[in-house]
Amino acid sequence: MITKAEIKTYFEGLQDQICASLEQADGKATFREDLWHREAGGGGRSRVIQEGNVIEKGGVMFSAVWGGLHEKMLASMGLTEKVDFFATGVSIVIHPISPMVPIIHMNVRYFEMSNGAFWFGGGIDLTPHYIVDEDARWFHQQLKNACDKHDFSYYPKFKTWADDYFFNTHRNETRGIGGIFFDYQKTDDTRTKDQLFNFVKEIGESFAPIYTYFMEKNKDIPFTEKEKTFQLLRRGRYVEFNLVHDRGTKFGLETNGRTESILMSMPPMAQWVYDYQAVEGSEEERTLGLLKKGIDWLE
Amino acid sequence: MITKAEIKTYFEGLQDQICASLEQADGKATFREDLWHREAGGGGRSRVIQEGNVIEKGGVMFSAVWGGLHEKMLASMGLTEKVDFFATGVSIVIHPISPMVPIIHMNVRYFEMSNGAFWFGGGIDLTPHYIVDEDARWFHQQLKNACDKHDFSYYPKFKTWADDYFFNTHRNETRGIGGIFFDYQKTDDTRTKDQLFNFVKEIGESFAPIYTYFMEKNKDIPFTEKEKTFQLLRRGRYVEFNLVHDRGTKFGLETNGRTESILMSMPPMAQWVYDYQAVEGSEEERTLGLLKKGIDWLE
Repeated sequence: MITKAEIKTYFEGLQDQICASLEQADGKATFREDLWHREAGGGGRSRVIQEGNVIEKGGVMFSAVWGGLHEKMLASMGLTEKVDFFATGVSIVIHPISPMVPIIHMNVRYFEMSNGAFWFGGGIDLTPHYIVDEDARWFHQQLKNACDKHDFSYYPKFKTWADDYFFNTHRNETRGIGGIFFDYQKTDDTRTKDQLFNFVKEIGESFAPIYTYFMEKNKDIPFTEKEKTFQLLRRGRYVEFNLVHDRGTKFGLETNGRTESILMSMPPMAQWVYDYQAVEGSEEERTLGLLKKGIDWLE
Repeated sequence: MITKAEIKTYFEGLQDQICASLEQADGKATFREDLWHREAGGGGRSRVIQEGNVIEKGGVMFSAVWGGLHEKMLASMGLTEKVDFFATGVSIVIHPISPMVPIIHMNVRYFEMSNGAFWFGGGIDLTPHYIVDEDARWFHQQLKNACDKHDFSYYPKFKTWADDYFFNTHRNETRGIGGIFFDYQKTDDTRTKDQLFNFVKEIGESFAPIYTYFMEKNKDIPFTEKEKTFQLLRRGRYVEFNLVHDRGTKFGLETNGRTESILMSMPPMAQWVYDYQAVEGSEEERTLGLLKKGIDWLE
């Protein structure tokens, strides 16, 4: 059975692979690395890329932390005794320069407790500034293909989970076109730890091919000032989701995580216009109309 | 004894006065008004000003809402029976064009419950992009003067409350130079309802003279690209405070308030740079060094 040390080592290697792929696809910017240590145990390797040819700001973060489980987390799990935890994962958010290239987020993680419980979580979701049906279909097809190699129930289940999770309730709109999201994936009669880990590896390794595809395909599409402005507005909503709703961000900030690593997800620049209304019949209106749950992009 | 209807009417008039003063001081932009109704009772008059001579984006919001108290609020007050509430207030956030003019926030509010309890709350705090000691002293002196007319204990108490409230814990820095903040101000042996209301009026009416003073005084101070960039970074922190920590914002978003009115506090444009570090000895470094609790600006 795979150990936490092996999972940690795998995630470090995944971070390396992804950074190399993104640097190659960008062709200009390179990642800056910051190592950080957590007093209570563990630390991380934050890698941030800024001002590239394609990427305006992005982070590929690895961390492996351990120690006594925080009271808030114990309470949320209904645990009364003190428990030690070990958590490791890779988290990514990329904000491209062009409004024609989508924002992407990916996370894979493993969590283990001293009482013997362990689980995997993760997901990938895409936030195009302008939704292109063909791109949305291709994206969801890649995720379905990755899921189907492991369990045919995964894609429909985790796609719905993403719709529900990446949702700005206060705007009544999804963050983007969703993707997949999963948490608390534990062993059971049908799934061994190795099988779960193989699925998480599949998702982690699908990130670079998916995003570099969009980088290559869309980076040279011309865009106007109007489209750049809409990108800034959509980034404002991205900020709202991450600061108001995202559980990982909230938990990190509340438990004194490394703020600069947690908030690498913030866009380089964002805009808010009071009561923005898209022009009737415009591409902006079309995109806003597609920010809802339950769309079957593979139809 | 002053009634809720009279307080509501006063706040509406205060909104009118403040909007008139700001329009006059700006000299270009005027407020747009949106009336909104709340299904469960009451509504508001949202007024937003954008793209002025001095003001880039600002809101002066009036609301008066009533109905059954939300479960979350009942629970937070330790109430088990259903209670009706009435709440009215004026809320303001102004983001100026120039980094030499400070961001300001003001709020005055009154809350009453069907079980007979009622209280006032409010505050004013200033977020200069660059802290100028003389301006900070003047600002705090105005607040102290206003407080001292009513109770000598108010300024020290409410100044400390503002330091604690307008604090970005995840950054370990105050939002700006603070000001005053107060909540749950109820009648007692020494304070009648009319006296409390007179104090709240004093604070509400001190807003326009204070902010138009800074508008006039600082609007023509020249600034550079570097200073504009720093303004965008400081606005990023303003976003973080409002979305992560501000109780009013969180409560509004959680209880299905009017999102566009609540998020009028968002700046027109904001920026995030990974691990920003001010140049040693720079004005930026000086300002960042002053973003801490407990500074006596009147010293």
